[in-house]
Amino acid sequence: MRNIKNLECSKCAKTHLHTVPQNVCHACGKPLFARYSLTAALKREDLASRAPTLWRYRELLPVGDEANIVSLGETMTPLIHAKRLGAAVGTLCKRASLAEVWIKDESRLPTGSFKARGLAMAVSMAKALGLTQLAIPSAGNAATALSLYAAAAGITAHIFMPKDTPAFNRETCELAGANITLIDGLISDAGRIVAERKAAEGWFDVSTLKEPYRVEGKKTMGFELAEQFGWELPDVIIYPTGGGTGIVGMWKGFAELEALGWIGEKRPRFISVQAVGCAPIVKAWEEGMPEAEPWPDAHTIASGLRVPQAIGDFLILQAIRESGGAAIAVTDDAIREAMHLLPATEGLLTCPEGAATVAALKQAVANGMISPSERVVLFNTGGYQA
Amino acid sequence: MRNIKNLECSKCAKTHLHTVPQNVCHACGKPLFARYSLTAALKREDLASRAPTLWRYRELLPVGDEANIVSLGETMTPLIHAKRLGAAVGTLCKRASLAEVWIKDESRLPTGSFKARGLAMAVSMAKALGLTQLAIPSAGNAATALSLYAAAAGITAHIFMPKDTPAFNRETCELAGANITLIDGLISDAGRIVAERKAAEGWFDVSTLKEPYRVEGKKTMGFELAEQFGWELPDVIIYPTGGGTGIVGMWKGFAELEALGWIGEKRPRFISVQAVGCAPIVKAWEEGMPEAEPWPDAHTIASGLRVPQAIGDFLILQAIRESGGAAIAVTDDAIREAMHLLPATEGLLTCPEGAATVAALKQAVANGMISPSERVVLFNTGGYQA
Repeated sequence: MRNIKNLECSKCAKTHLHTVPQNVCHACGKPLFARYSLTAALKREDLASRAPTLWRYRELLPVGDEANIVSLGETMTPLIHAKRLGAAVGTLCKRASLAEVWIKDESRLPTGSFKARGLAMAVSMAKALGLTQLAIPSAGNAATALSLYAAAAGITAHIFMPKDTPAFNRETCELAGANITLIDGLISDAGRIVAERKAAEGWFDVSTLKEPYRVEGKKTMGFELAEQFGWELPDVIIYPTGGGTGIVGMWKGFAELEALGWIGEKRPRFISVQAVGCAPIVKAWEEGMPEAEPWPDAHTIASGLRVPQAIGDFLILQAIRESGGAAIAVTDDAIREAMHLLPATEGLLTCPEGAATVAALKQAVANGMISPSERVVLFNTGGYQA
Repeated sequence: MRNIKNLECSKCAKTHLHTVPQNVCHACGKPLFARYSLTAALKREDLASRAPTLWRYRELLPVGDEANIVSLGETMTPLIHAKRLGAAVGTLCKRASLAEVWIKDESRLPTGSFKARGLAMAVSMAKALGLTQLAIPSAGNAATALSLYAAAAGITAHIFMPKDTPAFNRETCELAGANITLIDGLISDAGRIVAERKAAEGWFDVSTLKEPYRVEGKKTMGFELAEQFGWELPDVIIYPTGGGTGIVGMWKGFAELEALGWIGEKRPRFISVQAVGCAPIVKAWEEGMPEAEPWPDAHTIASGLRVPQAIGDFLILQAIRESGGAAIAVTDDAIREAMHLLPATEGLLTCPEGAATVAALKQAVANGMISPSERVVLFNTGGYQA
């Protein structure tokens, strides 16, 4: 059942042992990817009888012994056909109705956001590897997810996040009993503090893509999407991009599904959405750069998009380019409008980051980047908080 | 596929047509129950190949034509084995660890609470019956659920709720585009206003148990529980009780499952939980009364439990008594403690109403009402709001 072979650098391909805790590549400092022996793997049809949670893909996940799984009930998230939103966006853009807009509603995961996928995997692997002290810099939802999964595992979580992180995130970390440090700065500043202190304190750093298994959890978004659409991927995926692990994970996951013969060559065009107040990936994409520069004075109402620099920038940009996609920046006003449009048309609540994908859809349809006949999936990454 | 036969008064058994909109019994004013022809019904085994949503039980639900289903993705909610909570409660009560405590996490439904089940059904039936104006008095979560389902259906929602209803509920109703009236009073006052104005305004009243289909949605909690436990019901269900439709629905649902031969005679003991500041059912149960008196000066931090009078009081009390259960009042301080205990032990976030079931578990174990070896299910009816 444990098909993982090793960890491999996503940049220089150097291999690393997966049987001990690892952060980034020892040679070049870039993210490590889990690699699997997929030859002995399961058939698509075997999934039908399994429980509807992300653990149904267990042969493609790193946790070997099921006793190490830390689960808060990671049910497959609904994929909702948004006909009324599609019609409204068509009208707003003076185009035909969009008949194939779908929402993947990640707000329905434990801890209230898509961050559950990555942290379920990271905390399960931390348990498997005997780690007891985990540290994380976070813009908010990852902190909530780590705090809660760690509590369920009896592991100590050390949280570093901006002092103006939403109250929901601060309070839920407190309720879970995490050790919380509020930073007068951004997630990048929080990341520096974790990096400086972790050796002396004995913390294992679970920053996204500086830890190899959060991305393995995130790739299950792609697995579910493929399975829910009958193994035929959509034309476009619109995804809100902070650290970018979602796009990187789905891109990796689709390659694994193709290696298994479960899907063909077709890939969705990835449209990465950022806020105009913090758009390093958009800038790098527009300028044709392979990596992104740190964004100065990052600001947006979407706290999860307030990520001035991502270690996986080159992977995000690669996935966007190879897929024929794009990167789009949306204004906070457009996000606010979309936070109304989605519930008013579809009855779905959304966080600002999820609303950003609706704003991006409007922009992409208006400028012809998406045609009204295409099948488009928007990721709603979290729920509404008052 | 449409197995519904008619509506029958839960008190006097008078039958009513289900093909036209109905509220309460024309003869005695009590709640109406949907009755089905269950002889032609499905086998348990048929469920396995169906999608994991509450619509898998469609032969036992009132919506005939699937085109009328208004769905926001009502995935089956996880049933989580709470071993660490069970151990903690055992220790706190100076008893053995409780090895069989389970949480049914209803916070994972659309709209953020268990109210989605009832309103999914009521709005689908409203659509089927051609209703376009729905009115509801609510303590909060039902308002959010109606507003969002109505928005998805293109139906107008008229919301009446206390002015101190949590911000999450007020804001989500606004986002969905509902017509909102804030009341200087409680849900019972809101209910009076709906009753007074509905005829002149042309609104259909979807107050719980004054509308026959919300309870049909709620009974799916019992169906899922039975299926998730392999058709063996637990020993005890602890349920937070405002309007009480959950207990009434599960009680009705279990009878239907037994009529189908899917379960035997065994029923869980229902433990109804209320707040000491609003405990009409507890008082009636303790005094051996068949109905409850209106509770004066209702107050509690659990807004969903601030329901001074329930039209289904006699049904709730009947289910508690026939099941050999009980009714328990818990303090707001005990609720606050439990809101920390559940995330700290199990990583699960909870609303005050869900936390009340944890407080009640402690009380029931401490006083010997529940033995540590019993299988107990707590219903977490909604998520945490900052």
